This record gives sequence, structure tokens and C-alpha cells, in this order.
Amino acid sequence: MPMQFDPPSGTRDFLAAELEARERAFAMIRSVFSRYGFEPLQTPAFERLDVLLGKYGEESDKLIFKILRRGEREASGEADLALRYDLTVPLARVAAAYGSQLPTPYKRYAMGPVWRADRPGRGRFREFVQCDLDTLGTTSALADAEVICAVHDALAELGVSDFRFLLNSRHVLAGLLEAFGIPADLGQGVLITLDKLDKLAPAAVTAELTGRGLAESTAAELVAAMTAPDAAERIRAALKPSEEGAAGLDEVDEVLSLIAAQIPAGRVEFTPRMVRGLSYYTGPIWEVAAQGVPGSISSGGRYDHLIEQLGGPDVPATGGSLGIERILLLLPEGGRVGHVGRLDVAVTLMADEFAERSFAFAAAARAAGLRSSVYLGSSRKLGRQLKWASDQGARWALIYGRSEQEAGTVTVRDMNSGAQSAAPVGDLPGYLAQQAASTAG
Amino acid sequence: MPMQFDPPSGTRDFLAAELEARERAFAMIRSVFSRYGFEPLQTPAFERLDVLLGKYGEESDKLIFKILRRGEREASGEADLALRYDLTVPLARVAAAYGSQLPTPYKRYAMGPVWRADRPGRGRFREFVQCDLDTLGTTSALADAEVICAVHDALAELGVSDFRFLLNSRHVLAGLLEAFGIPADLGQGVLITLDKLDKLAPAAVTAELTGRGLAESTAAELVAAMTAPDAAERIRAALKPSEEGAAGLDEVDEVLSLIAAQIPAGRVEFTPRMVRGLSYYTGPIWEVAAQGVPGSISSGGRYDHLIEQLGGPDVPATGGSLGIERILLLLPEGGRVGHVGRLDVAVTLMADEFAERSFAFAAAARAAGLRSSVYLGSSRKLGRQLKWASDQGARWALIYGRSEQEAGTVTVRDMNSGAQSAAPVGDLPGYLAQQAASTAG
Repeated sequence: MPMQFDPPSGTRDFLAAELEARERAFAMIRSVFSRYGFEPLQTPAFERLDVLLGKYGEESDKLIFKILRRGEREASGEADLALRYDLTVPLARVAAAYGSQLPTPYKRYAMGPVWRADRPGRGRFREFVQCDLDTLGTTSALADAEVICAVHDALAELGVSDFRFLLNSRHVLAGLLEAFGIPADLGQGVLITLDKLDKLAPAAVTAELTGRGLAESTAAELVAAMTAPDAAERIRAALKPSEEGAAGLDEVDEVLSLIAAQIPAGRVEFTPRMVRGLSYYTGPIWEVAAQGVPGSISSGGRYDHLIEQLGGPDVPATGGSLGIERILLLLPEGGRVGHVGRLDVAVTLMADEFAERSFAFAAAARAAGLRSSVYLGSSRKLGRQLKWASDQGARWALIYGRSEQEAGTVTVRDMNSGAQSAAPVGDLPGYLAQQAASTAG
Repeated sequence: MPMQFDPPSGTRDFLAAELEARERAFAMIRSVFSRYGFEPLQTPAFERLDVLLGKYGEESDKLIFKILRRGEREASGEADLALRYDLTVPLARVAAAYGSQLPTPYKRYAMGPVWRADRPGRGRFREFVQCDLDTLGTTSALADAEVICAVHDALAELGVSDFRFLLNSRHVLAGLLEAFGIPADLGQGVLITLDKLDKLAPAAVTAELTGRGLAESTAAELVAAMTAPDAAERIRAALKPSEEGAAGLDEVDEVLSLIAAQIPAGRVEFTPRMVRGLSYYTGPIWEVAAQGVPGSISSGGRYDHLIEQLGGPDVPATGGSLGIERILLLLPEGGRVGHVGRLDVAVTLMADEFAERSFAFAAAARAAGLRSSVYLGSSRKLGRQLKWASDQGARWALIYGRSEQEAGTVTVRDMNSGAQSAAPVGDLPGYLAQQAASTAG
């Protein structure tokens, strides 16, 4: 049976160019989040099985990678551990474990792989990076606004060119159901259908609503209000009489006014039809749409009871998540800035007797702050070695042969122009530093 | 049954201070390795089970965390995937999968968690970070010397204060067996016993050697030669007549002469008794001893056939590994530099009506390159909020109340001195940038 060399289904190997681009993006995000006073958290790849199971329902449980017991218990075929499914369950555990050691509120970000046994597909992986930021322990809308601003800054710094926030509130949605006289038992279903207004035609949504048991006139009115050019205004007017609806509007307006000074006008829009599928949200909710990408590239909201439901303490919370894998695909060349090269200075080796000297040249270049290495192959031909220098993306090649030895110099070849100059062997670091400075300037 | 909140046995949660210290150390190492032209590689957390099993023998197989099949096949109790045990098996797979896409030689480093179902203990974890650098595709001693120099620079930059390299060669060891006339079938066992000379008394080692079937006089001679103050010289003399021994000495001397210009004299020592337990090494071998730490903090060597044995192509290779978890314990305060604080500028919130304004002050501070956030709690008392500012490690607190509103200023409180000054609301970023510059200066 031949061995397969590709990584397991749904996972990826990251070679240098792609990995470096990803790491640059991650570093940029970390820097934005810490500028807002969020601190990093890292938890293990796996958790005890009981910590993970039953947190998001049966369908999600099926996606959990379970780890077999070990030693004598392996034969039982049972699992006791499992790879983390998201970064929120570990956050709930951490909040429970270190409560008093954590600052209040606890503003943390986490960025790391999670694993889901989903069917792999285009842009859908079994191992992928999640990037979350959350504030635990405050009900203040300032916290919601702060998360939105931090996500905004991260997207802007990453270079996502055309994106906007859709903002809504769970209270607005509840008020909407009340204002349109929708029976309580139909509420959740109606919202799920309304959420499809960005994909389906209004008539299709109306049909689905009536299919759910809504009166035809109510369904038509509701869809008309939601899809009108002045939907936000019409919904505002409709919500006013509902106490919860009015409170939801206040919440949305508070967030809008807080972020106004930081986020360009029009980039965050009150969007009453935006529902967010997950039922655990309790206050403001938002998602980020980007040009040319179906679905959202980031989303979040307030979820005041989720941490407790996940096994943590009873604390209010708000947060957001960057769909970093999708975002990376949006960036120019998938974020892969043209390969910057592995070396600045490639040192050739013209004869074995010069090995020591050439090895020391590379050290001298590194001492000047440059990336450098000596040729490790067996060929002693210059052409072959210059090809290697070029493959490494080197800015300079150093050449040291018999004639250089006699002159006490080392030849510095500019790999772009092909120009060669002679540097004194004794002051190679100084010479290279000077070259580097003059090229940079 | 109460839920446990600690992480699974043998794993750790990293809160901000420790995580940041670790990340700083990792970044330092990455920077050194890339200065040598090594490029990063990242592979998935898990591999197909057949890729991992049987690579390092039965004892190691027992330490592998296996992942249960999913869906209908879960009931079989069988595993098809497993968490990676080290970073070398994935390297072999990558070398096989991407051969022609990789540079030749392929110089890569990898730094990431590996998982072993070992009994957890002091400094021994089930999830821990490995840090490897390897050069595939060249037999040149320059590559061996380069790995040693890169490891040296990494340890030096991390601030490990007192460490030295023990250098030897597999050929020296083979020559030693030949020179002392040790029967081939006893060879491997004799080397394993000799390796204990750093822990056991010479007499105990001699006894173990005779126990293995070595003649008493040979055992005594061998141990005497290895433990003499001039052991290196005596072994050199003894090895000269052996062809393999002499080749081994040349190899050691070549590495020593290459590194001489970069590594302070005496920091790398030819150590004939140093064996390295693993049988896959084929050339120079080395390990790094540090003051006050039993065992080694780093090790490596040439392993010209291992990549093929692990399922990869038949390429010569040399490399090294930093025992990063042990090294972090060696650093001052475990590398945990005094907490630098989460915020530079803590913005108080004196009344709800100032929320928008205060929120915007934090944005202004961030625009000046400072970490800043507004108080998110419900108290409006200044004392309480200044306590928060202090807990955040903030350098300044901003205060904006009724009197500031009237004056059109914001009060900037130096959190160290308690001194307060008034900044114009309109030019807060400029004022803070100036304050930051004057403090830094």
C-alpha cells in the first residue's frame, strides 16, 4: 500500500511564503487588539470530552474530533478527550478556573487552530484558525462598541478594501415580532426565514413565512417593510410602540453614536433584517459583509448568558470573531506579498579550502543585521552558485577565490545589477551595512 | 458530578503574562533562524495514523494520541488519525510531498506543539512546544556547523547565561569500539553504558560494561581513557590507527574550525563520551549542557538515513532541536519580564453623558500609537476608576467631567507621579504623543 504524502483531508501544510503571509496578518491583528487593551489567551488543543460535548447541540457534537483513551483503556474504543471545536468553550472554562486572577472586565483575544470534522470543501477546512475577541463582565454598550471598532481597525489594517458592518439588536428583532403581531411560538422560525432576505427573493421569503403558519397579509407586510429602500426608517417607526423594540433601537443608536468618531460614516448600518442565526445572542448583533464574498467575514454580538451555559460563571459578555481564513483569501494574492527572499547575502564557496573563510563571511553579514548563509551544495562552479543566490532572492552574492585571497578582498556582487565591487576582508560587516543603507535610501 | 475547570492533565492554559513571554522568546528564535536562511514550515496538528505509527518503536507508539473515526465508524472504536508526536515525521512527509517545490538544500525550522501521552510530571507535559531546525539535501559539514551556530545564537539571544556544546561524532564512537577491540555485537550496548558517564561513577560504568560481556581489562581501560582529565587527547591518540576513528576526528575538527570565528573559545568541546541515545545519527552529534540543569537543553546531529526511514525521500540531513520548555524555565523569572501593563492610557468615565466623548478620547490615544481603552464598569467614582487604571498598568489616566467640559480640556493624570495637567480636547493625540516622547526621552 503506497503511503500518501498529502496532509490529512481538510488540513494544510504551510510552506514558507504562505506561512509568513499568514503570520504577518496574525501579528497585525494582535497588534490592533492589544492597542485596545485586549490581552491574549492560549488554551490547550484538546479538552476533556465532557467539557466540549453538548454545548452547541447534537449536530455540532458530531463535528468534534474525539481522542481515544490510552494504554490498557485503548481497547475500550472510548474517548476521554477531544480537540477544541471553538475558542469560546475554553474561554468559559478559563473564566471559571481563574476568575479572581483575571482582570475585571476580562478583555481577551485568542487566535489559534480549532478542529471540526466537517466535510472539507472550497475554503472549508477541518483544521482552521479562529480569531476571537471578547469582553466578559460588563453590560456596557461601550464594550460592544469597542469590539466593533477593534474589528474595524483590524480589517482596515489588513487591507480589506470594501467592507461594511450590518448592525442590529436582538431586542429590535423581538420588538419586530411584537409590532407585527407575530405569535410567540412562530417567532424564532420567522426570524430564521427573515435572515434569508439577503439570499432569496422577497416573494420566496414571503412564501416560506406563510409556510411557517404566518398569515399571508402579515408576511407580505413584514417583507415589504424589511425590503423597502427606506427599510430602516419604516422599521424604526413600526418599533416605536413596542417597549422592547424601542429599547433595541436605543441600543443600536448608542452603539452608532459611540463609534461615529472612529468609523467612517456609512460603514456601519442599522440593518433590521440581519438576524444572526445563533440563538444565544442577547443584545446588539453585527456582521461584516465584504465585496464579492458571500456570507460574512466577521460577526459578533452580546451574549449575556452563553458563558454560563457553556459551563462558566454567570457573566455578561460581548465579542466578535474574524473569519480569518476567508479574510486571507480576500487580501491581494491571498496576503502573499511577493516572496521577499530567504537571504540578503548569499556566500559562494569557490574551493573547499575557503570553507572556513566563507563560513565566517556569512557570520559577518549576520553581524551586520543581514540574513546570510554559505552555499551548502557540492558544486564549486560560480554559475551554479549564482543561480542558487538568485533562487534565494539574495541582494548580494559574496565571491572569494584565489585572486580575492591575494588581494585581501571579497567580491560583492549586486544580484540585481550584476555590478561587482571589492570589499576589504577585514571590514566586511561595515561595508555591507553601508551597502544596505545606501540601497534602502 | 462537578465539572473540573483545570485544563486536561499535562496541558496548560497560558494567561497573558506567561503567553507574551513565551511569544517573545519564540519570536527571538525565529528571527535568529531566519537570519541563517532557514524558512518556516507548519504542518497540521494531526496526521494519518499510518504516517505516525511504527516510526520510533513500540514504546513511542504508546505515547501517540489517537483520534477516533467519526460518524458511523465511531462505534468501531478505531482510530484513523493521531496528534503529531514530533516535528520530524511531518518533515519527512513534506519532503516527500513537495520535493521539487522545496529549495535545495531545504533549510527549515518548525516551532509548534506536539503531543505525547507521557506521564505528566515536573517540567514534563503532554502538550509542549518543540523547536527544530534541519537542513535536508547536503552532506557538507558546513550545514552541521551552521545548525550549531544558529542554536548558539538563539541561546545567547534568549539570555541563557551559562551553556556549552558537547561535540562528538558517530564515527569517533565506531572508531573507539574498533580501537579498543570491542566485538561488534557488544558495540551498541557499550555505547549506551558509556553515555551514563555523566551520571554514574566510573566504577559503576565499568561494572555495567563487564556485565554486558566486555573483558574486565578492556572495560577498565576504556573508562579510564574516557574519564581522564586529558580524555580528549588520549582518545585522539587511540583513534588515529582506526580509519573510521580518524575520519570521525577529521569531521569533529572540521566543525570546530568552521565555528571558531563565531562561537567563543571553549564553548564547544570535543567530548568523546557523549553518545546521544538515538541510533539514527550518522555523523557529527552534539548536545548543549547548561549550568544547573540535568540533561541537555538542546541537541542534534547528522542523520543521513532517518528521513527515508520515516517515509520520506532518501536525503542526507542534519539538524537540531531546542528544548524550549526547559530553556524557558532557565530564563530570569521563567522569561516573564515584569508585566508591562495592558494599557498606556486609561480613560475614565465620570458620567454616562460623557460616554461618547470618553470613547473618542481612547480612539485619539490609539491614533497616537498608544494602547488605550475606556472604563467599562458601572461605577462613576473617580477613586474606583483610578484603581482600575493602576491595575491596567496605565501610564496616564484621562479624566473628563463637568469642569473639563466647561474649560474645553481633558485632565491628563500621570499615574506614577500623580501630577495632573490639562490637555486641549482638540489636540489630545498631539499632547499625548508629546508626553510619550518626553517620558521615553
